[in-house]
Amino acid sequence: MSEPVQGAAGATAAGAGTFGARIVDLADRLATHSEMAGGLTCTYLSRAHRAVAKELQDLMQAAGLDAAIDAVGNVTGRYRSADPAAQALIVGSHYDTVVNAGRYDGRLGILTALVVAEHLQRAGQALPFHLDVVAFAEEEGVRFGASYIGSSVVAGRFDQALLQRRDGNGVSLAYALLGIGSKAEAIAGLARRPQDLIGYLEVHIEQGPVLLNSNRPAGIVTAIAGGSRHLVMVEGRAGHAGTVPMALRRDAAAAAAEMVLAVEQRCSAKQGLVGTVGKLAVPDGAINVIPGRCELTLDIRASEEAVRAAAERDVIAEIARIAARRGVTAEVVELSRTPAVSFSPRLQALMAEALARAGVEPLYLPSGAGHDAVMFSGLTEIGMLFVRCGNGGISHDPRETVTADDADMGARVLLDVILSLA
Amino acid sequence: MSEPVQGAAGATAAGAGTFGARIVDLADRLATHSEMAGGLTCTYLSRAHRAVAKELQDLMQAAGLDAAIDAVGNVTGRYRSADPAAQALIVGSHYDTVVNAGRYDGRLGILTALVVAEHLQRAGQALPFHLDVVAFAEEEGVRFGASYIGSSVVAGRFDQALLQRRDGNGVSLAYALLGIGSKAEAIAGLARRPQDLIGYLEVHIEQGPVLLNSNRPAGIVTAIAGGSRHLVMVEGRAGHAGTVPMALRRDAAAAAAEMVLAVEQRCSAKQGLVGTVGKLAVPDGAINVIPGRCELTLDIRASEEAVRAAAERDVIAEIARIAARRGVTAEVVELSRTPAVSFSPRLQALMAEALARAGVEPLYLPSGAGHDAVMFSGLTEIGMLFVRCGNGGISHDPRETVTADDADMGARVLLDVILSLA
Repeated sequence: MSEPVQGAAGATAAGAGTFGARIVDLADRLATHSEMAGGLTCTYLSRAHRAVAKELQDLMQAAGLDAAIDAVGNVTGRYRSADPAAQALIVGSHYDTVVNAGRYDGRLGILTALVVAEHLQRAGQALPFHLDVVAFAEEEGVRFGASYIGSSVVAGRFDQALLQRRDGNGVSLAYALLGIGSKAEAIAGLARRPQDLIGYLEVHIEQGPVLLNSNRPAGIVTAIAGGSRHLVMVEGRAGHAGTVPMALRRDAAAAAAEMVLAVEQRCSAKQGLVGTVGKLAVPDGAINVIPGRCELTLDIRASEEAVRAAAERDVIAEIARIAARRGVTAEVVELSRTPAVSFSPRLQALMAEALARAGVEPLYLPSGAGHDAVMFSGLTEIGMLFVRCGNGGISHDPRETVTADDADMGARVLLDVILSLA
Repeated sequence: MSEPVQGAAGATAAGAGTFGARIVDLADRLATHSEMAGGLTCTYLSRAHRAVAKELQDLMQAAGLDAAIDAVGNVTGRYRSADPAAQALIVGSHYDTVVNAGRYDGRLGILTALVVAEHLQRAGQALPFHLDVVAFAEEEGVRFGASYIGSSVVAGRFDQALLQRRDGNGVSLAYALLGIGSKAEAIAGLARRPQDLIGYLEVHIEQGPVLLNSNRPAGIVTAIAGGSRHLVMVEGRAGHAGTVPMALRRDAAAAAAEMVLAVEQRCSAKQGLVGTVGKLAVPDGAINVIPGRCELTLDIRASEEAVRAAAERDVIAEIARIAARRGVTAEVVELSRTPAVSFSPRLQALMAEALARAGVEPLYLPSGAGHDAVMFSGLTEIGMLFVRCGNGGISHDPRETVTADDADMGARVLLDVILSLA
């Protein structure tokens, strides 16, 4: 383990602070390509999106990487091992954004991998594996309502049925790909095989306040939470707000209010568990009418499946109890369900050592949001590092922010882990 | 008191059951005039509304009353006293409806007064006062967003500024009145003077379940609840539903949910007090976003002003406490306020005696909804009788219903009270 330590120390000495400044600078540069005035929107295969792909390819080539844009728009730059038959370590994240986005979600990870590759190239550091910097074209699911299009292709998990999925303008994914000169038949050939990979690493802003509140520049992701989403439709009895005594009401909104608090209470009971009612509405509500209907949504996530399942079961049972007690009905419809994903203990340990060497006490935290890394679970070892998010942890918002110092720490830890793996 | 008793008994003997059957039959007949297919909508000065006015005038004339349609569309039929200088007793209610209405709200009271006048005419019953059956043209406030247009004119409380108020099609009230050949200048002359009145009586369906649940065909209204309406805007902090731990959230919807339950709890604490959150919504809510904003409305009513004011004060204070505890803000904006109105103890006592004579144990109840009687408060003695509403007390809905037997009881009690006053 002494060599990697020296390597990382050397990197730190050589590029002290410059990784971070360059990452922030490049994020600003990428953000100039946008579909909206006065803010950043870069959805899959838009003009702005294609301009970012070109810019990333140019940056990778300038760094001496073999860079290409694949059939679905992923940009891959390879820092080659001397052994052409070597396995590859993928370090990736995505460059598409949500609407009116921040500059770091996804892009921080690409640019961190890029500056590390630049450093390796400058240092002439030989690696026993190819280092593939991959900028995934689509992760947010904005345009086609399907997430992970880019990483699912590389991981061999692309759902061919998505080719017929249409965007808001009626354009199918297959047709949009034709627009960049791609043929759907090329997609299958982009899948990596397990035997060709040694692992997958991803650096990402946390998109939450945990690192900020625990005063850490970076932290180790233990798992990506699994989640379930439900729609709850409460039906009571509408009535005149002035004429129906309180005791005789079957108020759908009051029942829904109890359900909202039940979700909050149950999901506060355990660390790593979260429950959200994001939509809540009395359809056609009027100020002087007792609500006859109320709708709410449930989004329950936890890094441990058993924890999530127990919470979901308890919440749904409590909803039924509340409805029965109040003489209303509550129909609960499952909308979606995704399993939890765990990160490699070995990669977590390497990150912990790298953090410790950088003087940061390792902090382990689950991710409540999904990331490209999910696609590589089961295919190869996966690891993920979170970098502190400023402004209270806000993300998917122009106020999303990262300091150059924290971005620098992310790059140093990534470099250290890569050298440890070498 | 013996004469009135005999009069009422005579009426009962003469028309046993026929009052009710005729009232229900006439309500069906009036409901054939509608602005919508397959349901009843009769808004102010619509074609259907003018047809109902004409039909009411014809019915009054057929009953031997002096009937006329006034400048705002009220239909008045006078059963004359032998003394031309006698004071008048008004018995009225309204014939306009809400959208997709029931057949009895308002109209039950007009038709009850009409069948009683028919009976008096048939019986040749002399009265020491004129009996004015008044069908008010507008009470619901649907077309111009202003309630009580008809009764406010007769009570001398019409707000002239309303003449410039426009409906959804941009037609002003003044212009709509021109369409029925009326001039705004005529309105002031329609106001009754206190010295010309001996009182105002109104029969109305309860529009609630109290009589139904207490097994009474009719009951005595003690007061019309005063009310206040507020808009509450809760602002917390939006966030990613997966990445922000429960303890760090400032969820506007969870705060609003607590507020909804606080309204319900506080307003259940006292008889005759009601509190409703009729509108509840997370604007632009998304299933995977912690609500940053939530809006709700408050509608608090009570027949005693002190009771309502205390509840309002407590609810608003509790909203502030909930907001402070959760680190969100709650702006509370008053939208409107109407004072409570009490009914004449003397008229209540006469109704109680009439009910008792009809074998019904008197039940006193407040009205949570406003009625035309409100306009005559302070001008003359007012009294109001509620008739049982079927189908759980539903109103403002096609399922609104009244039995012929209950309508009959309402008419018998009204006749008895009129004879008592004589």
